[in-house]
Amino acid sequence: MISIMRERGYSCSRIWLYGSDRSAGQVVEYDGHDLTIEHVDRVDDRDHDFAILCANPDVSRFVRDRLKSKSTVIIDNSSGFRMDDDVPLVIPEVNGSLIEESTRVVANPNCSTIILLSALHPIREAYGVVKSSVTTYQAVSGAGIEAIEELRTQTGAYIDGRSVDPVVFPVSCAMNVFEHESAINPIDGFNGEESKIINESRKILEDPHFRILPTCVRVPVERAHSQSIILELENPCTMDGIVRSLSRDGIRIFDRDLPLTPRDASGKDNVFVGRIRIDPMSDNRTVVLWICGDQLRKGAALNALQIMDLVCAKRNSKGSVSNTVTTRGLVRELI
Amino acid sequence: MISIMRERGYSCSRIWLYGSDRSAGQVVEYDGHDLTIEHVDRVDDRDHDFAILCANPDVSRFVRDRLKSKSTVIIDNSSGFRMDDDVPLVIPEVNGSLIEESTRVVANPNCSTIILLSALHPIREAYGVVKSSVTTYQAVSGAGIEAIEELRTQTGAYIDGRSVDPVVFPVSCAMNVFEHESAINPIDGFNGEESKIINESRKILEDPHFRILPTCVRVPVERAHSQSIILELENPCTMDGIVRSLSRDGIRIFDRDLPLTPRDASGKDNVFVGRIRIDPMSDNRTVVLWICGDQLRKGAALNALQIMDLVCAKRNSKGSVSNTVTTRGLVRELI
Repeated sequence: MISIMRERGYSCSRIWLYGSDRSAGQVVEYDGHDLTIEHVDRVDDRDHDFAILCANPDVSRFVRDRLKSKSTVIIDNSSGFRMDDDVPLVIPEVNGSLIEESTRVVANPNCSTIILLSALHPIREAYGVVKSSVTTYQAVSGAGIEAIEELRTQTGAYIDGRSVDPVVFPVSCAMNVFEHESAINPIDGFNGEESKIINESRKILEDPHFRILPTCVRVPVERAHSQSIILELENPCTMDGIVRSLSRDGIRIFDRDLPLTPRDASGKDNVFVGRIRIDPMSDNRTVVLWICGDQLRKGAALNALQIMDLVCAKRNSKGSVSNTVTTRGLVRELI
Repeated sequence: MISIMRERGYSCSRIWLYGSDRSAGQVVEYDGHDLTIEHVDRVDDRDHDFAILCANPDVSRFVRDRLKSKSTVIIDNSSGFRMDDDVPLVIPEVNGSLIEESTRVVANPNCSTIILLSALHPIREAYGVVKSSVTTYQAVSGAGIEAIEELRTQTGAYIDGRSVDPVVFPVSCAMNVFEHESAINPIDGFNGEESKIINESRKILEDPHFRILPTCVRVPVERAHSQSIILELENPCTMDGIVRSLSRDGIRIFDRDLPLTPRDASGKDNVFVGRIRIDPMSDNRTVVLWICGDQLRKGAALNALQIMDLVCAKRNSKGSVSNTVTTRGLVRELI
């Protein structure tokens, strides 16, 4: 979050950082200046324009309660408010129009959902989607910085013929693949990540019966998620039409003469679309995509900042919302 | 192949090895005895019961021509004869009944196809399959022993912050995932591995229009392929019914309380079935499976030896074919 703010030129003089007991007092370098992390208990000492929350749902609820009497707009990265009826769940390119001048809390969707819908939504707009499935190849960093450490330690040990017990994941992630570590719902057998994709997609697309069948799998990749997506369309498509529908902000068709990999998407703002195939048995009604997106950028931090841009645009222009406006100097707070 | 023969107790006194200029003269240790590899030009010097070919299609054709006047039964691991009308393409558990006393050449299917159909076929028999898709997580060893070396070298370098140019694969396989390296058909966009799955599945299932939509992807795993499979059924299913249909030789439902990974299937004969889910939106007509199978054993060497067992059984019993007969001492040749 902080590194993207720096890239985008937000002034340090208008950023405050808050954290838990563990991190309060620590100093974060920002563009040559030192920012000291204050304790989250002090979050309502000042008047902030925005609060961007990168914590767990309990902390998010605590901060929202603390800021109740303030005019601060909360953009929350946790899953705490995502399914709340009065909280818009926003991917700017998909449903940014939900942001209104009066919006006070906005939820940032799950990373896999953001990456999936970035590609699915434009095709759905163009052709309609009757049914869809997504099979993921998810980077370990989705499980936190400890997971990257675990991947490196375990892999090094594996190459040396040693074995190290896993801590972050239930099984070794060294040269191994396994279902997403979130808890499995005993009723339908879906894991937490898959349920998020289903529920959040339905909310964002405003279609409570939208058919998306996800299978979420971790792969030993440090950063950026890959997805294989199958879309069954309402209307027959053409390759040109699919490419045209994907030619919009936030998406880039990968045109190098090499396979698209998560490394190509690492550190990039866009979601990349690699192979596009039309199932020859489907009467041009089934399209298969291979996409890669940086789940820490577009899947989290960048999307949150784009939501902030939208709120600013809405307030400044009172009407016409643009996705490209920047908020240099507008931001006041970052948690 | 050799290590599985040893496990299964084939006598070294009845095994001959043949190879190219490069390997002729080399000595292979077998159960405490030395077997010297002879040049493949000498393959018709003796009368052999079986020739198991583990080479490329050109070598397979060369050997077949050389053995034309012999009664040797050829079991070929290459893709050379798989789609030939007069050559049965056999997974013993699926279509072993195709083997007849007079069979002279049998083709061993592609590894991904064997693993896929091991699980798909029993469910298709029980419920019918209208449409299916498979998304793969394929181990690098499918690309040969050099690929394992490349994975280890590249990964070690990656952890050290160095980069090594890929040789076997088009991009780095270190902590990376990418589409299968086989050539892409410019007409439909499917890669060679995907086309094999489609064509071979149709031949094995004897359904030229069988709908299988594959996406083949390499993952940084040394051994054993994983697959996420979606089956749209003709008739509604139950979880018990699916489990019952999968309770047969060659398949094992994974019942540990941990995620099923390719490591669990490594070095094992069975194809393992992990998560089984029924899509709650499908009126019990869509089932999702996560399976792992050792592509070097069941996906190649073991399946070839099981085919040999079948031929022997057919010849010995003239009628009743059993998959469990062993051929101790019957084998004469291994190339």
